[in-house]
Amino acid sequence: MDREEDKNTISRRQVVGTAAVGAAGLAGGLGLGKAVAPEQAAAQGSPAARAGTQKIEVAPGELDEYYVFFSSGQTGEIRIIGMPSMRELMRIPVFNRDSATGWGLTNESLKILTEGLTQETRDRLKGRMNGVWQNGDCHHPHMSFTDGTYDGRYIFINDKANTRLARIRTDVMKCDKIIELPNQYTIHGMRPQKYPRTGYVFCNGEYEVPLPNDGKVLDDKTKYWSMFSAVDGDTMKIAWQVIVDGNLDNTDADYQGKYAFSTCYNSEKGVTLAEMTASETDWIVIFNLKRIEDAVKKGDFKEMNGVPVIDGRKGSAYTRYVPIPNSPHGINTAPDGIHVVANGKLSPTVSVFDVRKFDDLFDDKIKPRDTVVAEPELGLGPLHTAFDGKGNAYTTLFLDSQVCKWNIEQAKRAFKGEKVNPIIQKLDVHYQPGHNHSSMGETREADGKWLISLNKFSKDRFINVGPLKPENDQLIDISGDQMKLVHDGPSFAEPHDAVIVHRSKLEGKVISIWKRDDPYFADAVKQAKADGVTLESDAKVIRDGNKVRVYMYSAAPAYALDKFDVKQGDEVTVYVTNIDDVEDLTHGFCIVNYGINMEIGPQQTSSVTFVADKPGVYWYFCTWFCHAMHMEMRGRMLVSPRNA
Amino acid sequence: MDREEDKNTISRRQVVGTAAVGAAGLAGGLGLGKAVAPEQAAAQGSPAARAGTQKIEVAPGELDEYYVFFSSGQTGEIRIIGMPSMRELMRIPVFNRDSATGWGLTNESLKILTEGLTQETRDRLKGRMNGVWQNGDCHHPHMSFTDGTYDGRYIFINDKANTRLARIRTDVMKCDKIIELPNQYTIHGMRPQKYPRTGYVFCNGEYEVPLPNDGKVLDDKTKYWSMFSAVDGDTMKIAWQVIVDGNLDNTDADYQGKYAFSTCYNSEKGVTLAEMTASETDWIVIFNLKRIEDAVKKGDFKEMNGVPVIDGRKGSAYTRYVPIPNSPHGINTAPDGIHVVANGKLSPTVSVFDVRKFDDLFDDKIKPRDTVVAEPELGLGPLHTAFDGKGNAYTTLFLDSQVCKWNIEQAKRAFKGEKVNPIIQKLDVHYQPGHNHSSMGETREADGKWLISLNKFSKDRFINVGPLKPENDQLIDISGDQMKLVHDGPSFAEPHDAVIVHRSKLEGKVISIWKRDDPYFADAVKQAKADGVTLESDAKVIRDGNKVRVYMYSAAPAYALDKFDVKQGDEVTVYVTNIDDVEDLTHGFCIVNYGINMEIGPQQTSSVTFVADKPGVYWYFCTWFCHAMHMEMRGRMLVSPRNA
Repeated sequence: MDREEDKNTISRRQVVGTAAVGAAGLAGGLGLGKAVAPEQAAAQGSPAARAGTQKIEVAPGELDEYYVFFSSGQTGEIRIIGMPSMRELMRIPVFNRDSATGWGLTNESLKILTEGLTQETRDRLKGRMNGVWQNGDCHHPHMSFTDGTYDGRYIFINDKANTRLARIRTDVMKCDKIIELPNQYTIHGMRPQKYPRTGYVFCNGEYEVPLPNDGKVLDDKTKYWSMFSAVDGDTMKIAWQVIVDGNLDNTDADYQGKYAFSTCYNSEKGVTLAEMTASETDWIVIFNLKRIEDAVKKGDFKEMNGVPVIDGRKGSAYTRYVPIPNSPHGINTAPDGIHVVANGKLSPTVSVFDVRKFDDLFDDKIKPRDTVVAEPELGLGPLHTAFDGKGNAYTTLFLDSQVCKWNIEQAKRAFKGEKVNPIIQKLDVHYQPGHNHSSMGETREADGKWLISLNKFSKDRFINVGPLKPENDQLIDISGDQMKLVHDGPSFAEPHDAVIVHRSKLEGKVISIWKRDDPYFADAVKQAKADGVTLESDAKVIRDGNKVRVYMYSAAPAYALDKFDVKQGDEVTVYVTNIDDVEDLTHGFCIVNYGINMEIGPQQTSSVTFVADKPGVYWYFCTWFCHAMHMEMRGRMLVSPRNA
Repeated sequence: MDREEDKNTISRRQVVGTAAVGAAGLAGGLGLGKAVAPEQAAAQGSPAARAGTQKIEVAPGELDEYYVFFSSGQTGEIRIIGMPSMRELMRIPVFNRDSATGWGLTNESLKILTEGLTQETRDRLKGRMNGVWQNGDCHHPHMSFTDGTYDGRYIFINDKANTRLARIRTDVMKCDKIIELPNQYTIHGMRPQKYPRTGYVFCNGEYEVPLPNDGKVLDDKTKYWSMFSAVDGDTMKIAWQVIVDGNLDNTDADYQGKYAFSTCYNSEKGVTLAEMTASETDWIVIFNLKRIEDAVKKGDFKEMNGVPVIDGRKGSAYTRYVPIPNSPHGINTAPDGIHVVANGKLSPTVSVFDVRKFDDLFDDKIKPRDTVVAEPELGLGPLHTAFDGKGNAYTTLFLDSQVCKWNIEQAKRAFKGEKVNPIIQKLDVHYQPGHNHSSMGETREADGKWLISLNKFSKDRFINVGPLKPENDQLIDISGDQMKLVHDGPSFAEPHDAVIVHRSKLEGKVISIWKRDDPYFADAVKQAKADGVTLESDAKVIRDGNKVRVYMYSAAPAYALDKFDVKQGDEVTVYVTNIDDVEDLTHGFCIVNYGINMEIGPQQTSSVTFVADKPGVYWYFCTWFCHAMHMEMRGRMLVSPRNA
């Protein structure tokens, strides 16, 4: 690496003495140990001091203006929050198991959870119940784009823990596809292509491993590599992968449809904390989409597990590596379509790139650092940056527990040597912010109204709920000249990242009643047809050897079958079709002491398969309160003993 | 049954023509089909119209005054909500699987989830992953009592789906015990003893089954029975059970420590909707605790699966059956310690009992209906009643979508024939309310400040999130003469029931840092001791045949082990001890592509066991953002191939 390119960097050691301080001692140094008394906290954010210019209350009967799609972090689900009220409107199970909807139990969900796994994983999980991973770690939810703004089709979400990408259909707000990426271990950064449309979904492999990772290479870190993947968002098939130097943290795409770019915090390819943070600089890596597509066409790749894998390590035509200060984290493209901000983390700076220079960089007309047009020093621990569409940027400072508002043009002037201060305001948040997000801020339609700061610690901000505290998503009014903190939003493990989508992007697209030809339950429709059953009006039991298919419809407050008979040891599949054509009239189907429960929305068919391994009388009942006689909405599964 | 006792009842058919209307046709008749345009909705609950006398905003830095413990319904968890802000502060996994905390994966949680199951269930679930049921249907959370009010020790919660009772320790806000009740199928109503203390936790078996339910009797409903159980809340062992006539729906206890009482909606022991609602009357059944305890002592019981089972069917000394109008649902004891309200459901009435008359009833000095002191007609579909401690009651009307405020003394006077109207106000809620709850309202310290109405439908109250809508927990200010609706609270499947506990009841009791001698991880401490390992300071790998125990501590941003070696096929147990002694500094431990993740709170030890079935390099990493270098908090599990 060319050290001369580092002229604008600041030594990490000037900022936090990471190498000098033992791990256990750091918490105190980071301010994590400082207690703030409730009275102090109240004074800091007292109602008088914090009034914003926009109303935050959404009174009974009023509607929120924005959908916020939260990743939820380790919980493995997507959450929909209404903004500005910050109320949780829905949970969408994705990588988790959900007791209410039967996600991970119904045949429809099991298909989605398993069909996109690699064959190796499927073989491996076969012996476990349902062959489904039991956890997932959601990171970065993003909506699909068309022409640089949200198009209301899909939400994509990545699972870092088990290297999966999932897609949520926004018409029904259910996950419809999950794929596991081969040749890669973890997906951390994930972003959809903004232009011309999504298109690609870019997925960063954060952790370096041997390829193939079959145990032949174990401890030799020089043989570890990270992978960058592009998934086709329409088909949810992997398009191509690129092997890179170093590792990959966060990623974003441009508004021109030409480039994607990722931060790298471990250019050292270290395997310990000290090794990973040893170098004064790391880099961003830029991917040239056209050149990569051409390489795939002309065959300049190695096929690995069915995927074309391009060699994008240093010196390749497909990538460029631009050095920046040590261990950058987030990377965010501004709504102006020109500027890209990489956030310093261990450096107090952010590095601003001009994407218009990337063509010249790939043509070797300029040096990598020539693409940097500003590098303002903002404070300690810059992690992520959001934008208001008016030329201002909002960067979270993890160590300072602040959001820093700064001006991009001023930062560029300062970088050129002018004596101007790009920093407009610093606002305390509570505490240690990670991601932030502004309303429509990752699109060309950034509206500059709201900012949320997703804080990793809440400590004393809420009444005590035990050793595990909520995180704290704070709502900030950015419509005026000064940021105003207006709301503390506790959140369960964790609000990792979020996107804020104006409701106009989804109006008329989200349905309330399932369509009977929905692909979600097409397999059930097909099986019913084969069995000569009309799902909407038949109540039948079909025996096929020791396989029994039980078909019934439901209409509040009754199932079409008030009992059915099976034999101990039968493999039973129950299909329930909710024929209520009434908004919000969901039924459930639960069998007592059988561990079975599922949701059946209006006009939906749901099914579940289990072995009737226990003889006796087992009531099934409706779990969604549907009627005054909901308690009476029940029937009996009569299981005759094996040897009867 | 003595029909002469029914003089005050009203025919069900006068209210809703249930028998006459087909199931599918009822939804419309119930008003579920009516759409309310957002503009109309806004007008109904416009800010001007709804201002209460109490402040509902909890500004940044301010603290909520009440804990609300929500059951969450089919989701299987407990949720803590702050009131009046109605923000979700924490989720406590109980009967569900939780991807974030590792509930259902860690050894500590698996012990709790499995050790209280019956041997039959354990045998049956052995073949399934972890031997844990995958679902649960939480219904009625209640705090433990001492002297008629909350004592801040435990929250109890029942699982209807799989007949379990769980207990949450409120010092750490974690579930510490789960038991499955034998001889019973479902727990629906559940309440703790109020006086002298909890003491007993009463659990209603709602569904009638043959006993034993082994398949010998299947379709003969005359041989089906329901069971009432008393669990010792201190030991979480079942104390005794009582076989009853009919079935059991909801339950409550008195303030004298003498009686528990339950509603029955299926005195007919029907197995279809028509059969269950055939009779004009059902009943409440009253349990005489002293007589039952004496029976256990003197041996007047039959032992079934190790439990003393008393015969409490009609004519027994242990119970009394008091007829009331058809299909009652909720039953609630007033804070005055005297009145008990059973809610009519299919009858527009509620029946008010005077517990002081129960002694005479059991001594056969009076007739069952002589215990009824009022039976006001309130509206359509009364389900549950809450109290303000000032003599007023608040009853949810499911069909009318209203809360009815009425006065108990006025109702008694009307029952005696006076021309007084006990109804004070009816307030529209949105829509179809089930449970409601007032602040401290199920204790002798009811404070008359807040009421929440847990509505089963939200329909048009929120921006559209697809066919599955949230429910709607509405907050109502009851501190003035008139109820005022002040907040709509969307809630995911579902907010079945809740208790509102003043924060003073938990102040000083909820801890932020685990104690090292906590029983929650005592097994890990014991195993470490046997292995000669000091959990807080050792990083060791102990091999014991093909069992490998990996011990490490964690301190942000590092694990004490940056790698460990195992062989393919090893059974690996990883123990992580978080030595950070800092509030809110939780660590996680996740292994990439291994489906493993768990929470380790400050000063906690957590452990997980799995088979290292896949060779290669697998990074483990911290899943709770803990430090500026959280991304670098990772290490490697090196799995050498089986045949290497």
